[in-house]
Amino acid sequence: MLVNGKRSNSISIRDRGLLYGDGVFRTLRVFEHRAQLWPLHYQKLHHDCTALGITCPDFTLLSGELDSLLGQHPAAVMKLIVTRGEGARGYAPTRSAPPTHLWDIAPLPDYPDDYAACGIKVQVCRLRLGQQPRLAGIKHLNRLENVLAAAECNDAGMAEGLLLDTQNNVIEGTRSNLFLVSQGELVTPDLSNCGVAGVQRDRVMTWASRQNRPVQVREVKLEEVMHADELFLLNSIISLWPIRELEQRRWAAFPVATQIRQALLEE
Amino acid sequence: MLVNGKRSNSISIRDRGLLYGDGVFRTLRVFEHRAQLWPLHYQKLHHDCTALGITCPDFTLLSGELDSLLGQHPAAVMKLIVTRGEGARGYAPTRSAPPTHLWDIAPLPDYPDDYAACGIKVQVCRLRLGQQPRLAGIKHLNRLENVLAAAECNDAGMAEGLLLDTQNNVIEGTRSNLFLVSQGELVTPDLSNCGVAGVQRDRVMTWASRQNRPVQVREVKLEEVMHADELFLLNSIISLWPIRELEQRRWAAFPVATQIRQALLEE
Repeated sequence: MLVNGKRSNSISIRDRGLLYGDGVFRTLRVFEHRAQLWPLHYQKLHHDCTALGITCPDFTLLSGELDSLLGQHPAAVMKLIVTRGEGARGYAPTRSAPPTHLWDIAPLPDYPDDYAACGIKVQVCRLRLGQQPRLAGIKHLNRLENVLAAAECNDAGMAEGLLLDTQNNVIEGTRSNLFLVSQGELVTPDLSNCGVAGVQRDRVMTWASRQNRPVQVREVKLEEVMHADELFLLNSIISLWPIRELEQRRWAAFPVATQIRQALLEE
Repeated sequence: MLVNGKRSNSISIRDRGLLYGDGVFRTLRVFEHRAQLWPLHYQKLHHDCTALGITCPDFTLLSGELDSLLGQHPAAVMKLIVTRGEGARGYAPTRSAPPTHLWDIAPLPDYPDDYAACGIKVQVCRLRLGQQPRLAGIKHLNRLENVLAAAECNDAGMAEGLLLDTQNNVIEGTRSNLFLVSQGELVTPDLSNCGVAGVQRDRVMTWASRQNRPVQVREVKLEEVMHADELFLLNSIISLWPIRELEQRRWAAFPVATQIRQALLEE
C-alpha cells in the first residue's frame, strides 16, 4: 500500500475522505503485471476530481507509483483513492490543503466461471437511489446507498442487484453498469440524476458507435428491463456478466452480450 | 486523539469509513471540562448506528474514553466517529468485522458574539439535497452534499446557508437545523427524506411541548420561510443563531429565538 507515494497502510483521522467521504476512487484490474485500461481510469479520475474541485494528482506521478506496484503484483485488484486531504475543521474545503492519494492492493476475486458464460441471477433491490444531479456519474466516496443495497443482495445470496431511483427509473447494478438489448437496440440508463458512469460503460458505447449501432442513453423503467431481449452488467473487475434470471423472468441466450464481451476482451 | 481506545491519529486505509463513508459521527461541545449533552448525543449515535446495522460501542466504554480526554481539554470541540470497521473488499458489510471508534479534538471556534445576539446573514444554497428516506435524519459520513453547499457559503462570505431538497422543500442549514416562527407557530422541516436530525432540534421540540406549544414538523416551502416572523438555526457548537438576513428579507427582532436560546442555555 502507498499513501502519498510512501509505503503506509494508514491515513490521518482528519482526512476529509474519512470525515465526509470527500474524495473519489478507481478500481483497476491488474493481470500479467498490467493495469488494464489505466489511461481510461485516469481520465475518469481526473474528471471526477474536477467535478468536486479536488486537484487530481498528475498522470505521470500516479503512473510511476502504479508501475512500482505492478512489479510485485502480477494479478490483483488495485484501488486508487484521491481525497481532498486534511484542511481545517468543518465542511467547507480549504484551498490550501494538498489532496491525499493512496493505493491499496487486494487479490483478484474468484468468481465462478459460469457467471460470464451462463449469466447470473439478479434481484431488484428494495433500496432506491436518491436523485442528486450534482454528484451523478461520479465515483465518489459517499457510497452508503451501495453498501445498503449490497447488503440486501448478500442476504439474499445474489451475485448482484439492480438499483432503481426514487422515481422508479432503473439505473445500474450495486457495483456495475447495466445495458439492455431492447427491441433489438442497445440501451443504457441515463445517469444524469444518480449512478456511477464506469469505464466499461464508455467502452461499450465507443464499440457500439464504431459498429454504427449507437447506444440509446435514456430513461429506463423496470417493465422495459423485464421485457428486454438481453441484459448485461459490466465493471472493470467482472468485465461483463449477462443476467440469466431477474425476479420471475429467465433468459437462456445472450448473443449480443457475448459478442460485446469478446470485443472488449480483444481490444 | 484516540482510535479504538488507544492514542493514535490514524486509521487503516481499509476502514469502511474511508472507503464508503460507512459510519456515523457526533460533534460535542466541551466547556469547563464537561461534554455538553453527552447522553443525548450517545442516544443519537446509537440510533444512527442501529439504522445502518453497525454495532454501537457501549455507553460506559465511550464515557470512560471521553472522561480521560476531558481532563486535558477543558474547552474543545470533540468529534466522535464510529465506522463499520475493516471487513473484506466490496460494498457488502461482513458481519465479523468489529467497528472502529475514534475521538478527535479541535479548539472551540471563535464566532463573533453578535451572531447569537443579532443574528446572521444567510443565503439559499444552489445545491439541492437528494431525497433518500433510508438515510434521512442520520448523521452519517456521506457528507459531500454538505461539503459542496458549505463551499458555496464560504465563497459568498456567508456564515451559513439554507438547503432545499430536489422537490424544493426547505430542509436545514448546511450544518444546522432550522426552525421558523410562522404565523405565531413553531415549525421545523420534516426530515423524512433528507437532512440530519440533530440533538438541539430534539431539545427545542421537548422544550416547546413542555410549554404546551408543540412544534409543527412538516413540509416547508421557501415562500413560508421568507414570510416567517422569525427564523433560527441550531447545532451543538453554535447553540442557536437567529437569521437576520436572507436574500431580500431582513429581520430585526427575535423574541422567540431569544427565549428558546435562553431556555436551552439554562437547562
